[in-house]
Formats: sequence, structure tokens, C-alpha cells
Amino acid sequence: MTSPSNSGIVVTDERPGTPSPFDLSVYLAERKGWVESALEQAVQVTYPETIYESMRYSLMAGGKRLRPILCLATCEMTGGDWETAMPTACALEMSHTMSLVHDDLPAMDNDDYRRGKLTNHKIYGDAIAILAGDGLLAYAFEYVATQTQAVPADRVVKVIARLGRAVGAAGLVGGQSVDLACEGKTDVSVETLDFIHQHKTAALLEASVLSGALLTGASTSHLQRLTQYSQNIGLAFQIVDDILDITATQDELGKTAGKDLQAQKVTYPSLWGLEESRQKAQQLVDEAKQILEPFGSKARPLQAIADYITARTY
Amino acid sequence: MTSPSNSGIVVTDERPGTPSPFDLSVYLAERKGWVESALEQAVQVTYPETIYESMRYSLMAGGKRLRPILCLATCEMTGGDWETAMPTACALEMSHTMSLVHDDLPAMDNDDYRRGKLTNHKIYGDAIAILAGDGLLAYAFEYVATQTQAVPADRVVKVIARLGRAVGAAGLVGGQSVDLACEGKTDVSVETLDFIHQHKTAALLEASVLSGALLTGASTSHLQRLTQYSQNIGLAFQIVDDILDITATQDELGKTAGKDLQAQKVTYPSLWGLEESRQKAQQLVDEAKQILEPFGSKARPLQAIADYITARTY
Repeated sequence: MTSPSNSGIVVTDERPGTPSPFDLSVYLAERKGWVESALEQAVQVTYPETIYESMRYSLMAGGKRLRPILCLATCEMTGGDWETAMPTACALEMSHTMSLVHDDLPAMDNDDYRRGKLTNHKIYGDAIAILAGDGLLAYAFEYVATQTQAVPADRVVKVIARLGRAVGAAGLVGGQSVDLACEGKTDVSVETLDFIHQHKTAALLEASVLSGALLTGASTSHLQRLTQYSQNIGLAFQIVDDILDITATQDELGKTAGKDLQAQKVTYPSLWGLEESRQKAQQLVDEAKQILEPFGSKARPLQAIADYITARTY
Repeated sequence: MTSPSNSGIVVTDERPGTPSPFDLSVYLAERKGWVESALEQAVQVTYPETIYESMRYSLMAGGKRLRPILCLATCEMTGGDWETAMPTACALEMSHTMSLVHDDLPAMDNDDYRRGKLTNHKIYGDAIAILAGDGLLAYAFEYVATQTQAVPADRVVKVIARLGRAVGAAGLVGGQSVDLACEGKTDVSVETLDFIHQHKTAALLEASVLSGALLTGASTSHLQRLTQYSQNIGLAFQIVDDILDITATQDELGKTAGKDLQAQKVTYPSLWGLEESRQKAQQLVDEAKQILEPFGSKARPLQAIADYITARTY
């Protein structure tokens, strides 16, 4: 497993008077640590042990923790502190983990490995894996509702609404259902491919970005900018994922490489070729960074994360 | 399928000056109609159609709508109106339906029929059935958060917390995980059986009863009475379910009768015998009715529902 400190991206702020370079590797590693400590505390094993162990197995199985980090970063950029956003950040990771556990099931993508480890159902069986996903999703909402401190309740309700929409049929679940319907087809349109990724990947990234701002009561114009930012990085993220599926080795990826090709899945590189896919991802990232300029130097973490998406190799 | 109007239970209020009999059949039929209209509106079919159709298939597959009706009744008993509680009532039914769809999967209880109809995965396949459950659960929380009107946001947050706890590993999911672990065992203790039912069945019934009262800002002492009421009817409900599994015919039940016996599941009748099980259920119901006496005639619907649980034959 590669750790974020290997990303090697340092964004320097070139304006006079603010010469300190921003080290994304340090930033990501620090926040990943905070998120994992919070997740450790959030799900503890009690009777009936198996279900909690299964939930924890997948929740603590590593990963970049990108969604929670985006939520913390947006909360800070719009005037809050990261502690305020931590319950929401944990809920985003719980929801994301639910989708991974269910997607890996034999009835769905039938994956044996995830992040270099056996998938949940390979350890606990299909029934417990289904229940662990359900448990994580239900707990995500409970956790935001019970653990969010010092935020007006109407904002908490908005965050919950946004999270629910991002996960349900209008988001992740809808995207996955179309993805399943397209499997084995070689004539999938770019519109359908866009739909899949906007719902399966981008919707939860967008909810991650926006929920951090909803907690601070950010203005409509700020929320609009953040929506544009997150839609751009969401699509760029998926394009890079498709590229990596072709170019990265199994060892780097921690999952079966070339799986999309084997499954004859339509991907952005299969539609556009590798080079045009890379250019498109870069253009989306450039736009995403530009749209945050009104936030000044406070936007540096989110801008660096946008760069990180196209630069990552795993 | 038998309709609630066949239950034939009429509770008469014998105090002077309030001679009007309370007709539970009419009460249940009316509220079931309201709930089903609200559910019809809540989930409408749009692109991608299959996932919405699958969600609707199970959500609109009938049933007594007992959980939403309990929520509406408690809201009215504690000073609210039923319209206020309808989004929460719908969310309870969505969550309950999720648990049925997932429990019926081949990886879990492997049921082909539910309420006399083919189960979700028999129509849509396992993958869509898993996703439909996920979609219903996520939407349940979104629906409470976005549709609840004229209720202070802090009460909505409390309802969401309660619903999440009732569904997750501390509730339904935890109960189902122990139930699965006990399958095929003939030496299950009464403590374990109690745990299963308190979590798999009673937790969501309790959340149904309490959420209606949380929406009206009911006092702690009222909430305590409602907790006791719901725990009693939850356990009585399960005992009666076990009895019916032995005594009812498949036609009345709308599902495979005698399934618990075939699966060698430990049930209350297998521990206590049929007659003692019936007596225990009746005693729990009597206590439940008594504890609501401070609410006077306003408690009549919930008291009649308690009676209905032991009197039902399907």
C-alpha cells in the first residue's frame, strides 16, 4: 500500500508576502490520521461482535479517506474548524464503505480483493457483508445526528438530506444500477457513461465538499462554486481511475488491474483514447482550481487536492 | 390477502358521557390509505427506471403498514396532527421494507414469496434487490430531512438519530446477524431469542412509536411510558408471529408457513409451548394498554392496536 506522503506534490504560493509552500503530503497524512482516529472511536466492537467486526474490517481497511478530508477542508475554507465537520466526515466514509462492501458482493461486481485485502464477504460471508453495509449506512445518519456539536440543527438536517440524496437512487445507487445494466455492452453512449460516474462517484464527492460548507452556513454563491469544483474533480477522478485501470499494475492499485477491460466495460479511455482522456482530466482540474480563487489562500488545500487527483498513480 | 377491515375488533369506551365505540378496523383502514397515498407520491419512477421500479415494487407490496400507523397515532396522542408525522411514517416503512428485501435474499433467508407476491430479487435479481434496499434506506433519511414541515429542526434530528439506531447494528441489523448465527441450532437460549426479537422486530416498532412523540416534543415521562408500551407490543408481536407460523395456513400468511419449523429455528412456542406463549403475549398486551391510561381517551387507538396484535390471525 502506498501512503499519501508519497504523492510528492508541493504547491507553492507565488504571491509576495505569503511565501510558505503548501505541502499536500503532510496535509493529507495529518488529516487521514485524524479521520482514522475518529472512525476507530466511532465503531467499537460489542455484542453481537461479528457484525461490528465486519463493519470495522472494511471501515478501517485503509484508503485515501478523500471524502472525509474534502469535507473537513471545505468546512475550514468556509470559516469553520475541522472538529465541527468530523462526524459528517466519518458518515461520508461509512456511506462510501457501505457502497464498496455491497459492490464487491458476488451478486454485484464479485471482487475478491479491495485495497490489497480480501473483500468483506470473503471473510464474513455474503449475509454479514450485506448487513454490515446496511449497518454502516444507518449508523452514518445516526452519527451525524447524534455527534455533531455546536452547529444549528437546521444545518445538520441539510447535511443529512444531502448525504441521503448522494447515496440513494438519485446518486450512488442509481449510478451503480446503470453500471450493472451496461456490463458486457460495448455500445454504451458517453451520456450513459457520464450518468454512471456523475452518480456513482461524483455525487458522494460533491456531498463531501458541500456538507463541509453546509455546516458553516455558507452562502448560496459559495455553495455554487463548490458544486462546480466538486463536479469537475468528480469527473476527473473517474477518468483517472479508468486510465489507471489500464496503465497501473495490480500491486500499485491493490485490486485486480485491467478488470474493466476483462469485463468489456466502456470507459473514458475506450471512448477517447488515453491521451485525450488525460487532457480532459487536466482541463477539469484546472477549471476546478480557478473557480476557488475568490477564497484566496484558504483554497490552497482544495486546489492541491484537485491537482493530486490527476497526479495520483494508484 | 386479508384486509385490516376483517379484524373485527371494536373497542367500546365504557365511561359515561363518552359512549362512542372506537372502531379499529375503520381507523386502520383509513390510515393505511393515507400512508399508501404518501408512499405512492414519495417514490416515483424516473430514470434509471429499474431501480425505482424495484424500490416501489416492495414498498407498495401491501402489508399492514403498522409501523407508520403507530407513528401517526403517537404523534396525534401527544398533541400533534398526523400530517406532521407522515414523512417520518413513510421513512419507517421504507426502512422496514429495506430490511425485508435484504432478508429475503438468497444469501440471507432465501425467501421466494412475501405477502403472497414474489420477493424483490425473484423479479429484479439479487444485485438490484441489494441496491433497492440501499436506496430505500438512504431515501428514508433524506425524506424525513427534506419533507418534515413545521417541526423544529432539533426534533427532526432526534427522529433521525432514533431511526438510524433502530435500523443499524444496535437494532435491526444486529438482531438479524444473531438470528443468522442461530439458524440450524436447537440449543438457543431464551436470552438470545429475546435479543434477536428485541433488535430485529421491537427496535423499529419502538422507533415508530417514539418518533411520533419526538416530533411533538413530548416530555421525558411520556417518552418513558411509550418506550414501555412499544417494548411490550414488540415482544407480543413476535410471539404471535411465531405462533402464527405454526398455526396459520400459507394462504392466510401470504408466505411459506411452517418455515421456522423447517429451518429448526428456536421460537417462543418451541420454548414455552403454544398455550404459554399465548398467555405471555396477552399479559404483555394488557400491561401495554394499562401504561397508556394517563393519556385518557386519546390512548384508545394505541390500546386497540395492542389488542389487535394478539387477536390477528395473519
